[in-house]
Amino acid sequence: MPSIDDLDTPSILIDAARAEANITKAQAHADRHGLKLRPDIKTHKLPYWAKKQVAAGAVGITCQKIGEAEVMADAGLTDIFLPYNILGRAKLERLKALHGHVTLSVTADSHETLQGLAATFTDGGHPLSVLVECDTGMGRCGVQSPAEAVVLAKAINRAKGLSFGGLMTYPAAGRAAEAEAWLRNTRNTLAVDGLECRRISSGGTPDMWRSGQDSVVTEYRPGTYIYLDRYQVAKGVGTLDDCALKVLATVVSHPTPTRAILDSGSKALSSDTLGLPDFGELVGVPGARITALSEEHGNVTLSGGARLRIGERVRVVPDHCCVVTNLFDQVHLVDGDKVLETLPVAARGRMG
Amino acid sequence: MPSIDDLDTPSILIDAARAEANITKAQAHADRHGLKLRPDIKTHKLPYWAKKQVAAGAVGITCQKIGEAEVMADAGLTDIFLPYNILGRAKLERLKALHGHVTLSVTADSHETLQGLAATFTDGGHPLSVLVECDTGMGRCGVQSPAEAVVLAKAINRAKGLSFGGLMTYPAAGRAAEAEAWLRNTRNTLAVDGLECRRISSGGTPDMWRSGQDSVVTEYRPGTYIYLDRYQVAKGVGTLDDCALKVLATVVSHPTPTRAILDSGSKALSSDTLGLPDFGELVGVPGARITALSEEHGNVTLSGGARLRIGERVRVVPDHCCVVTNLFDQVHLVDGDKVLETLPVAARGRMG
Repeated sequence: MPSIDDLDTPSILIDAARAEANITKAQAHADRHGLKLRPDIKTHKLPYWAKKQVAAGAVGITCQKIGEAEVMADAGLTDIFLPYNILGRAKLERLKALHGHVTLSVTADSHETLQGLAATFTDGGHPLSVLVECDTGMGRCGVQSPAEAVVLAKAINRAKGLSFGGLMTYPAAGRAAEAEAWLRNTRNTLAVDGLECRRISSGGTPDMWRSGQDSVVTEYRPGTYIYLDRYQVAKGVGTLDDCALKVLATVVSHPTPTRAILDSGSKALSSDTLGLPDFGELVGVPGARITALSEEHGNVTLSGGARLRIGERVRVVPDHCCVVTNLFDQVHLVDGDKVLETLPVAARGRMG
Repeated sequence: MPSIDDLDTPSILIDAARAEANITKAQAHADRHGLKLRPDIKTHKLPYWAKKQVAAGAVGITCQKIGEAEVMADAGLTDIFLPYNILGRAKLERLKALHGHVTLSVTADSHETLQGLAATFTDGGHPLSVLVECDTGMGRCGVQSPAEAVVLAKAINRAKGLSFGGLMTYPAAGRAAEAEAWLRNTRNTLAVDGLECRRISSGGTPDMWRSGQDSVVTEYRPGTYIYLDRYQVAKGVGTLDDCALKVLATVVSHPTPTRAILDSGSKALSSDTLGLPDFGELVGVPGARITALSEEHGNVTLSGGARLRIGERVRVVPDHCCVVTNLFDQVHLVDGDKVLETLPVAARGRMG
């Protein structure tokens, strides 16, 4: 079996047992609270993990792009949610083809999106499930009020080839109570009109762990929980030890006693810090901080007598694992220093 | 001939005539000032443009990774500079193989790097050219003083299978005069010892345009000049009209009069703003600013009566084009609305 010593750097290492444990733990939490899990594959982009997530009890998966959904459908995943406004003839045709062989659902937050869907999906015998996207405080997509949600839900319900699937939101950080009230209000108003919310879908790994039995939310779409990262650790979701994804890097320069340079820059670790100080956590080297990135170099600032050695290999827990996965064509599943398997990041680069 | 209306979004559009004009203009500037150009292919990662750059008069190309150099060598590029400390047996073996069929040069900034090179390259009849990397103020890799540079240059000169190729630096922004003095001092000291700097190589698109006849620098390694981007425009290198790379995006949501959402987030436009406000420039829509990105969404804030239409396609000049290229598997060369050619980003994802 190959060793990580045989890998070139930078490379992505996935602690396979740790990722499996993270899947199991989240599923157990969801089961305990009567929630359905529908993991967002954006974090790993691998059929390998999507299948493991479903095998553990997930009701299906979430994709962000039709191209991702196509890869997952080809790999045998059968229930796919695309919480995105799908617009334009080319994408709508691909969506229709996908609907022919998997259980598919999407979202809409406007009559323009709805019109495109309604014109494409016309078979009342096999309708496409459409959820209304609700802006419960995040300030991104989504209808702006429960009243708007009700109008759109009714319009979906009237379209012959569509069926109203429920409500979807991505909650603003720290505003879960507001989202809860928003969604409950909408659900109850719709119920008066005889429209049932079959699913009320919410997202975000940190919020999943705070969710409880009494929520109006029926399913969660966590993504990062499988790998975790420095941002999730900062949010209290886990410890650095729980992080399954690490970037294996080499120290390529040590020009001063307090400065070392890694072969991993913004094209490996990404500039997306999610607001954290530093560009990742150098594991096992207290006093070492990744304080700057250029495209192919990571600057490490050393203090308190910390030293690295030129040629030494180090492991970095990135700030945001989802955007790191998106930079690499392959990942290595590892058990300690053993490489169990090398997988192509099959759904990477599927832009549309 | 296909039209950009046939492309899915997000996609990268390259104005082919504009990129060619940018190549021609830089080469003319270099020729006028007696400088050699050795473009860094990091910006485009395409053999197509590397060949055009050489055809226009560049002495060779610069790559950041052995994998990039391998792609370029396979495509017929014959003179490649890797201004990087190459460490580790696997990389050194690949470097040796490459040296067998192209004119190759690399850098070193430490005795550790030098030792690896010297142990791998032992043929005095076909030595590898090694330049000393100098930290002239950037604070990244590089020896810290002219005295250190001289010691390392002499050590390279003593190694049987290596030849001392000169000096290399990436200058700190706004400290070109300091870099110039540093390099001149080192060159003159080496000359006293009979060691000639065959090349003194500097980098950075903005600095290239400020360089003049009286510089000690003999070659420049500009990257971004071929496409330009919002950062280069901010630095005064060109106008928005000179930017050859744009991301074609679709407006997927318009939840409030002052907020629209694009289908291009940090996985298409990158979070790397290089310190600029906003995450790119929306072309032709005054009053529209890209004020936030999440992974698959770009938030546009509208003011002054600016409106977008759901389903509308827009073009975005990114803040930093090099990291955007790195996110896409293909680019489309265009002439106005005509798609001339679609090229795979052949050297993308070559991490090691």
